[in-house]
Amino acid sequence: MTDRKQTIQDLEKLRAEAPLIHNITNYVVMNGTANALISIGASPVMAHAVEEMEEMVGLASALVINIGTLSDKWIEAMHVAGKAAKSKGIPVVLDPVGAGATSLRTNTTKELIQQVGPDVIRGNASEILAIARAGFTTKGVDSTASAEAALEASKDLAQSAGAVVSISGKTDYITDGKQVDQINNGHHLMGKVTGTGCTATALTAAFASVNSNYQAAAGEAMAVMGIAGEMAGEKADAPGSFYTRFLDALYQINGEQIQKRWKNDQG
Amino acid sequence: MTDRKQTIQDLEKLRAEAPLIHNITNYVVMNGTANALISIGASPVMAHAVEEMEEMVGLASALVINIGTLSDKWIEAMHVAGKAAKSKGIPVVLDPVGAGATSLRTNTTKELIQQVGPDVIRGNASEILAIARAGFTTKGVDSTASAEAALEASKDLAQSAGAVVSISGKTDYITDGKQVDQINNGHHLMGKVTGTGCTATALTAAFASVNSNYQAAAGEAMAVMGIAGEMAGEKADAPGSFYTRFLDALYQINGEQIQKRWKNDQG
Amino acid sequence: MTDRKQTIQDLEKLRAEAPLIHNITNYVVMNGTANALISIGASPVMAHAVEEMEEMVGLASALVINIGTLSDKWIEAMHVAGKAAKSKGIPVVLDPVGAGATSLRTNTTKELIQQVGPDVIRGNASEILAIARAGFTTKGVDSTASAEAALEASKDLAQSAGAVVSISGKTDYITDGKQVDQINNGHHLMGKVTGTGCTATALTAAFASVNSNYQAAAGEAMAVMGIAGEMAGEKADAPGSFYTRFLDALYQINGEQIQKRWKNDQG
Repeated sequence: MTDRKQTIQDLEKLRAEAPLIHNITNYVVMNGTANALISIGASPVMAHAVEEMEEMVGLASALVINIGTLSDKWIEAMHVAGKAAKSKGIPVVLDPVGAGATSLRTNTTKELIQQVGPDVIRGNASEILAIARAGFTTKGVDSTASAEAALEASKDLAQSAGAVVSISGKTDYITDGKQVDQINNGHHLMGKVTGTGCTATALTAAFASVNSNYQAAAGEAMAVMGIAGEMAGEKADAPGSFYTRFLDALYQINGEQIQKRWKNDQG
Repeated sequence: MTDRKQTIQDLEKLRAEAPLIHNITNYVVMNGTANALISIGASPVMAHAVEEMEEMVGLASALVINIGTLSDKWIEAMHVAGKAAKSKGIPVVLDPVGAGATSLRTNTTKELIQQVGPDVIRGNASEILAIARAGFTTKGVDSTASAEAALEASKDLAQSAGAVVSISGKTDYITDGKQVDQINNGHHLMGKVTGTGCTATALTAAFASVNSNYQAAAGEAMAVMGIAGEMAGEKADAPGSFYTRFLDALYQINGEQIQKRWKNDQG
Repeated sequence: MTDRKQTIQDLEKLRAEAPLIHNITNYVVMNGTANALISIGASPVMAHAVEEMEEMVGLASALVINIGTLSDKWIEAMHVAGKAAKSKGIPVVLDPVGAGATSLRTNTTKELIQQVGPDVIRGNASEILAIARAGFTTKGVDSTASAEAALEASKDLAQSAGAVVSISGKTDYITDGKQVDQINNGHHLMGKVTGTGCTATALTAAFASVNSNYQAAAGEAMAVMGIAGEMAGEKADAPGSFYTRFLDALYQINGEQIQKRWKNDQG
């Protein structure tokens, strides 16, 4: 279960260790993901050439696989990197961006789950439903369902995939198929900036690199995201300024802010 | 003809419907284009794999083809997506970034015009001249000619291509080969940020998805761009801050701002 | 030797001429690099298709080769563009991002040095050590060594490669193998934003396009970077805001600021 005190400790550990997070991610968010990882205290690297996948994974403390802008060579690299990461024992976090929108995305996600076995699957409600429920389709990369509507599907997926599933929404839900953590921090402008979900995925990998309880780590990442969003929302009222302040907040968030703003204890 | 009242109505419609805009665009601007589309109220998706082009177009309300960072597989995807979009009847907006700089760009543009038949071609003066006038060449992706110098060429291109042509400049000109709309809103810092033209193209697709009079829709997009630029220019005096405020302005622009700042009536 | 007065003159020349800088660079920084080049007064273009390399180089005043997100086709384009640039006589600036992290990156760097012969190699200390000292390895794309620790290696590399070598760090060092310039401007938040090094590389190309003394030009770029960082650091205390203000500062930096803040004279 995600815990306030543990979140503070893991954030400090993350900043002390500056773990290398290897990202195979989409073109839209690469810059923002790298900046968010630096701001929180990690060291990002983006690399996708099959020729360097095993070596780069060999240096990394966690791997992000994000299918936002797919092509065949990148899918190949995702499999090679994923297997190398599992073999090395570092956490693999999968973001099935747009699963349910096209069969390429849905099928690529399912193959990665079966053949790589990610430790955490982090997506929006539509994406989780598209993976867990045959026949569910969606409109694009934005969710068309509430996180609540995907909760049962996320439990099923967690059990069948042997992974922690993390769904972002107004309330975020994290489940390993049995326990469910709820994260209630956040700000409405987070949904008005592209790549917030992808950032959540990258932070999930960063926290998983310092806490091998992935259920807890996934919740910590969402809590830190949400609290940083609230901090940013106090300084900005529109998406451009909000995004700038959100990166600032990831850099400035500390134990005191987490202590004060935490509202994720289960009742 | 682009009209103030219709622009306000179409902006409201855009925000109510949040149409999916499918972008095959360049690496430089993907993030900014996605953020601009979200800020104005649309739902962006970036996808370029040939394998998912028809399915993704099937979900979309408009297609952007932007040739800013070409390679062979992407060109193939542009043709597949373009034909699917035309067959479905959704608007196709082409941005011939850097046409005239290299023959790859000029030829790719001409082939897309001939084989896909975009509904709107939106570029800077150099690009339009390079497509419409054999032998015209340019320096890179920045225009070396004024919009006025490209006006006659844009009319010729509109007629030969059967498309609306939209040229950005100090004054923007939009023509279907007969009528010409002038858009006089704007701010000089818009030219000091990369991808402003690409954003204009994406917004053109967004407005075309809610107004099938593409001559009007193209002008609405340029007017909204220009007004948002003016709003941003009141809060920032250098490119970094300006860009942040420009995204804010796309989110904050409303009927009142359009009413107050409009200066695009012909007459 | 990098000189205050010459730096001011070259900045003015850069803004007057707006040279086209052709960048083959990584996905993470493309947008930021383009914006930094525009802010300082240059005209950026990003292009990587082998089919247009020679033509695009033919229009350019300098070429940037940055290996941050490699793949085979891009490596091919780097060689074609590099040879065309050398043949034309425009400066080629190489950024060996992540050399030492994987053999793909180390080997690609070495092959580009041997087969293209860049005029300036600009990297962090780890990257320079990985190229100049067999067996040196590093963690990712962030430096694991101080610039001072790489100084002798940078002199050796400059001599063996026949290039100016520019190492960024708290103090930046620029050497042609004999003379060494030190640049002492800068701000600690420059290390908390992704792509600062890549921006330095692009600005190096911009200054090299107006000053054929590449030792001097490389130092001018680092001095301008550092002074802009200091200007930004007076207006922002966290990475998101800092980056925005840094782009502003590149646009606003002028002779007066350089005169006032300069602290790079050798003792």
